[in-house]
Amino acid sequence: MLKVDFIGTGGAVPSVKRAMPAIALHWDKLFLWDCGEGTQREMMRRGVGYGGVEAIFITHLHLDHFLGVFGLIETIRMNTQREHLKVFAPRGLARMIEAMSPSFMRNPDFVQMGEMGEEELYRGKDYSISAFRVEHGKEAYGLVFHEDDKVKFNEKEAKGRGLKGTMFREIQAKGFVEVGGKKIKLEDVSWVRKGIKVVYTGDTMPSEHVVLAAHGADLLIHDGTFGEGTGDEAEGRMHTTAAGAARIAKKAGVKKLILTHISCRYADAEKELLTEARAIFKNTEIAKDGMSVEVRPGKE
Amino acid sequence: MLKVDFIGTGGAVPSVKRAMPAIALHWDKLFLWDCGEGTQREMMRRGVGYGGVEAIFITHLHLDHFLGVFGLIETIRMNTQREHLKVFAPRGLARMIEAMSPSFMRNPDFVQMGEMGEEELYRGKDYSISAFRVEHGKEAYGLVFHEDDKVKFNEKEAKGRGLKGTMFREIQAKGFVEVGGKKIKLEDVSWVRKGIKVVYTGDTMPSEHVVLAAHGADLLIHDGTFGEGTGDEAEGRMHTTAAGAARIAKKAGVKKLILTHISCRYADAEKELLTEARAIFKNTEIAKDGMSVEVRPGKE
Repeated sequence: MLKVDFIGTGGAVPSVKRAMPAIALHWDKLFLWDCGEGTQREMMRRGVGYGGVEAIFITHLHLDHFLGVFGLIETIRMNTQREHLKVFAPRGLARMIEAMSPSFMRNPDFVQMGEMGEEELYRGKDYSISAFRVEHGKEAYGLVFHEDDKVKFNEKEAKGRGLKGTMFREIQAKGFVEVGGKKIKLEDVSWVRKGIKVVYTGDTMPSEHVVLAAHGADLLIHDGTFGEGTGDEAEGRMHTTAAGAARIAKKAGVKKLILTHISCRYADAEKELLTEARAIFKNTEIAKDGMSVEVRPGKE
Repeated sequence: MLKVDFIGTGGAVPSVKRAMPAIALHWDKLFLWDCGEGTQREMMRRGVGYGGVEAIFITHLHLDHFLGVFGLIETIRMNTQREHLKVFAPRGLARMIEAMSPSFMRNPDFVQMGEMGEEELYRGKDYSISAFRVEHGKEAYGLVFHEDDKVKFNEKEAKGRGLKGTMFREIQAKGFVEVGGKKIKLEDVSWVRKGIKVVYTGDTMPSEHVVLAAHGADLLIHDGTFGEGTGDEAEGRMHTTAAGAARIAKKAGVKKLILTHISCRYADAEKELLTEARAIFKNTEIAKDGMSVEVRPGKE
């Protein structure tokens, strides 16, 4: 099960209700997607242990998406026994960390910077985190958490055909195995359980890149900064409306859509956004600070 | 009356209870002393209108004291009609703002940087804000808000001696005036009301510089990071214990002492600090986030 904690769900300017962007993913390790101002304290407030953060991924270098990284680095360095912290970000953050370093990092090797790019950035034992380009003016990325697909044996079928012991490993490696002179193919005795897929757009205009990257995802977390009432403001600022995100979700065939990066002007009016989105894509929610979502693997 | 709002009263690492250092002063204008991570949102939470900030003063370039300045600059630039914002800080912040600028400031002239130094930094119509050196390893300053002393006429006495009209201006300018051939000195018909004085140390070890700068202050806001139980940790980290701050307050003859920059380890144990300080200087308080203090002029 993947647990997704929404730490901060506002955009550009915080409000009392919404902190700056940050999403925590809990799998075998803890990952942060974006790290706006105040993220370390919001993590404390939400009971998300900052000390265990394995890696931070910054989607793009707008201030609201990365300012918290400096304070979080410093707190992890001071308050834990950690020797390293991985940070993936577009080129440019390294220079800012360097400019700041007289003010904090006594160990210049503490941060292991990885440059953000359209590739697999992190590989875990049964999952990967990768990035894809989105459309937000400057260099901006979306992120994908993808659990590896898993071969699941139909035990009744396999045993019925005489499979036992090391044959299970053999059939997975070769794709077939011979039992009593009979060839048994892997697909005859197993099925593939698709891995969980969660996609986060960061900031973006409606984009075909997102449709491609989010194809069939269990969860799409999409920029939903504005409502329809703002006219072409969303396009002008290179963001997406709630309805625009819903159209992308529908096109990509995702299971669930959560809108985030909500403009502070909607502090008490998210219903408006939700209604607009649900008219197009029913299984939509609006992210809230402190909201937790569990994504479980499907049956096929 | 000067209103002092404690926006953030923690030190180094925030806690759920204490945000990073920031103090708002309300006189005819609004000033910020230090601006740690999250200050803009804490101001919103406390109802302190960030849009009216006239100038920000950063005592020293440790991350916990200035990280919030970038987000606050950006929010003021985006959400108000302001064309400028004054920021006083030790040399070094300008370079960081420059390094960050691709991520935010579209108008490079928006921030008017002033270099922090031992001098008057800001002059208002009847007050000044100035800085003095403290002892915290790197270049670090304390701040003084000082209302100008005011000449107050003893009206009964002045009228009794025949003063009227423009004579009041004349006697203030020259120090005396002649009425019906008789010389009247200013001090015969007036008294001086001392201006309010509020001093903030920022981070410092116990320092004679503070004793001098805080002499007779109405309010001394002092680094009180640690308690006595931490042995020589306060000295090692170049901070002050509660008792150490109390000794400085006593020596400087201030009217009131407030301890701030409280280590997050005292989240539920500030009473310990308070008891230690009050044993030496009775009129001591521990700052809390959201606390407001009013400083009124005395009678002499």
